[in-house]
Amino acid sequence: MTYCAGILVDQGLVMIADTRTNAGVDNISQYRKLHVLEEAGERALAICTAGNLSVSQAALSLLNEGRISAATGDVETLSSAPTMFRAAQLVGWAVRTAVEEVRPALEEAGVEYRTTVLFGGQIAGEPPALYLVYSQGNFIQCSDDTHFLQIGEHKYGKPILDRAITGDMDLYDALKLGLISFDSTMRSNLSVGAPLDLCVIRKDALRVELKHRVEADEPYFHNLRERWSSALRQAHLDIERPPYAPTRD
Amino acid sequence: MTYCAGILVDQGLVMIADTRTNAGVDNISQYRKLHVLEEAGERALAICTAGNLSVSQAALSLLNEGRISAATGDVETLSSAPTMFRAAQLVGWAVRTAVEEVRPALEEAGVEYRTTVLFGGQIAGEPPALYLVYSQGNFIQCSDDTHFLQIGEHKYGKPILDRAITGDMDLYDALKLGLISFDSTMRSNLSVGAPLDLCVIRKDALRVELKHRVEADEPYFHNLRERWSSALRQAHLDIERPPYAPTRD
Repeated sequence: MTYCAGILVDQGLVMIADTRTNAGVDNISQYRKLHVLEEAGERALAICTAGNLSVSQAALSLLNEGRISAATGDVETLSSAPTMFRAAQLVGWAVRTAVEEVRPALEEAGVEYRTTVLFGGQIAGEPPALYLVYSQGNFIQCSDDTHFLQIGEHKYGKPILDRAITGDMDLYDALKLGLISFDSTMRSNLSVGAPLDLCVIRKDALRVELKHRVEADEPYFHNLRERWSSALRQAHLDIERPPYAPTRD
Repeated sequence: MTYCAGILVDQGLVMIADTRTNAGVDNISQYRKLHVLEEAGERALAICTAGNLSVSQAALSLLNEGRISAATGDVETLSSAPTMFRAAQLVGWAVRTAVEEVRPALEEAGVEYRTTVLFGGQIAGEPPALYLVYSQGNFIQCSDDTHFLQIGEHKYGKPILDRAITGDMDLYDALKLGLISFDSTMRSNLSVGAPLDLCVIRKDALRVELKHRVEADEPYFHNLRERWSSALRQAHLDIERPPYAPTRD
C-alpha cells in the first residue's frame, strides 16, 4: 500500500509520500514514490505514485523518454510542456500507456494493475496547480474549494485535512498538517510506513524550496506524533461524558 | 454506506450505528441498523448490520424465526442460545443463509450482496462478548488486545479509536469516543449520517442500560462536534512548524 498527499494553498504546494511497498505482508520493500523536476526560474514539478509498482515505474520511464508529437515530430517531456495542463495530459498519457501495456496479463493473473498519480507544481507564466491522474489517464484538479488531493490509503488521514486545511494558511502549517495526516495513516495501516519523502514548492519561486526525507526516528516528526497523540487524548478528556439518561432505573 | 462500531471495555459494551442507507447518491433513506434484545436478568444483546439492506433485513428475519435444530427439532433463537458463542453461530447461520439465497442473482446483476454484522452483549453466566460476523457466517471476537470492532465505512473513524480506547476506561468515555469516531466519519463521507442509534450494556447488569437515538441537532452531540473540531485546530496550532531547512538558499 501507499499513501501520498498533495496540498495546494495560496502560498504554494506541499507533497508527501511514504516509501513502503508490499507484495503481500511478507514482502515489504522501500521505494521512493516522490520525484521532483526542477528547472530553476522556469518550472518546479513534483509527482508521486500509488498502485502497482511496475506500472508506476514504467509510467515514470515513459515520462523520461517523452512522447513523440504526432503533429510536429518533437519529443514532448515534462521539461518541454508549455503549461501545467499540457504536462498533466502527458502524465495521463504515460500512466494510461503503462497500464494498457500490462493490463491483459495482470487481469488474467488477478493482479491489481491500477496506478494513480499526484502531479503538481508550477510552470513560469501560470499559477501552481495540483492534479490527481487516474489509471485511465484522465485527471482532476485542485480548486479553490478543495485544497488537497490524496492517493492510495487515503481515508485514515483525510479527517484532519478535511477539518484543518484552508487556502490562506501558512505553507509550513500545511506541511505540518500533512505530516499529522501521515501519522494517523501509519498508526492505522502498517502498510504505510516511514521514511516519508516531502517537498515544498513555494508559489512563484519556480524552484523546489524544500526536498526532505523524514526518517521514523527524526526528532521533529517523533515529537509531532507524541504531541498530537497527547493533544487528542486531552481533547477527548476535556469533553464531558454523554448525559443520556439510562433507559430506566 | 453505513458505519457501525462496537466497543468492549472492562465495564461493558457500547454499540453505535448510523441510519443512512443509499442505493446511489440519489436514493437515500433512513433505516434502523441497531437492534437490541433484552431479557432482564438473563441476557442483553445488540446487533447492527452493514451492507446490502435486503440481505441484512432477511438475516434479521431469519434470526427472529429461528433455526430448527437438526439434533433436537427445537427452534434455536437468540433468546434460547445458551452462550454468546452459540448465539454468534446462530447469527452467522442467518447471515450466510440470507446471503446464499440472493447471491447468484445479485452477482449476475453486479449488485453487492455482502453483509457484515456486529453482534455483542452478555448472557447470564459468562462475560460480555463482541463479535464481527462476516458474509460467509464466520466471525471474529474482541479480545483483551482489541477493544473495538467496526463494520462498513470504518477507516475515517478508526484513528481516534486506535489511539484512545483502553480496556480500563469508563464506559461512557468509550461511548464519547465512539461518537467522536462517528463525527470524523460523517464529516468525510456523506453516506454516513445522523440520526445515530446507540446502546450501552453494562457488564453483569444483564439489561440494556441505555438505548438512545442521537439526532443531528441534539445539543450534546452538536457541542461534542464543535469542541472536538476546535480542539483539533488548537492541537495542531500548538505544534511548531517543521524546522526543515530549505534545500538551498
